[in-house]
Amino acid sequence: MAELLEALEARRARRAFDPRPVPDDARESLWRAVSVAPSHGNAQSVRLLAAQSEGARAALAAALSEGNRGWASAAPLLVALGALPAHERADAYGGERAIWSFHAGIAAANLMAQATALGLIAHPMAGFDEEAARRAFAAPPELRVLAVFAIGFPGAPETLPEDLRGRERRDRRRLPLDRIVAVDRWEARHGEPARGERA
Amino acid sequence: MAELLEALEARRARRAFDPRPVPDDARESLWRAVSVAPSHGNAQSVRLLAAQSEGARAALAAALSEGNRGWASAAPLLVALGALPAHERADAYGGERAIWSFHAGIAAANLMAQATALGLIAHPMAGFDEEAARRAFAAPPELRVLAVFAIGFPGAPETLPEDLRGRERRDRRRLPLDRIVAVDRWEARHGEPARGERA
Repeated sequence: MAELLEALEARRARRAFDPRPVPDDARESLWRAVSVAPSHGNAQSVRLLAAQSEGARAALAAALSEGNRGWASAAPLLVALGALPAHERADAYGGERAIWSFHAGIAAANLMAQATALGLIAHPMAGFDEEAARRAFAAPPELRVLAVFAIGFPGAPETLPEDLRGRERRDRRRLPLDRIVAVDRWEARHGEPARGERA
Repeated sequence: MAELLEALEARRARRAFDPRPVPDDARESLWRAVSVAPSHGNAQSVRLLAAQSEGARAALAAALSEGNRGWASAAPLLVALGALPAHERADAYGGERAIWSFHAGIAAANLMAQATALGLIAHPMAGFDEEAARRAFAAPPELRVLAVFAIGFPGAPETLPEDLRGRERRDRRRLPLDRIVAVDRWEARHGEPARGERA
């Protein structure tokens, strides 16, 4: 498993998809990666909403922001990831720290790692209308939708509109480790935002 | 990378630690796994606070809940994971969805996956006093601390007090996939809490 870090580092939020469908066993292994994600008190509050029918797919795609709708509609699989805050343990830290969102993040990372291991792209999107995403599945208002994933095998960047093509090959920009890790003591540099370094 | 899912499934929140320290290169690979975690708008709002000095270590251990303090104090490495909400993109969904907590969850999962790949335990704890955890590092109030990790190589369960020993070998309990995955349509079973199935 020395190559795990390579897989985490290899993950990229690409936008060009190959049309071939995600095989059933790959799909199931993504669900399993989510299911084994840990949660405080084993609350297991995270849910996946997979758009398989044409109707659910069109409704979920329509919930996406304009900037995402175009390229993401070409992905063979669209999946929303949500959490049920009411299922969390009723202790103070759960509520104040939005632990439902933290749990959803853990599940999302497991899904992305497993997708990368299978040679798939799982591109997470925050740009969508949450109420419309729920409506696409007739999900209740107590489900908070945190992300929509466009999933599939990588395709040719040439299939993308010109403005997105260049972004496919762009290097990842990350803060140096000493800006995100404070050893023993917080320093001013740890509070500086990444904005200047944004890709 | 077919074994990634096995690694995700192999992760367990064990409590018995071996005293040998976490090697420097392993430690750095945990930081790198966090650093490559994706974030909306590449905000990179997640920070790690590693307790290396005896002072920082004692202060962070003291911030833990009573139930955690005993076993976690035996871990060779204690690390707090936090996020800076003010660094997130100022769009509506970022705020409403507590995206800082979601981002922290993604980073936490990367850290846990990388730890498992290295044969390490990285046991996440939600039971701690957030203000005391910040104080251990002189971190500012704008840092939200989401989890404290006890990290180290697995040790002998016999080193634990009797009440915790049995939990080391307990099976993982997870909801069946059809309770967490809704295909095309939300059903009543997706809204049912895991409480009855809690480990």
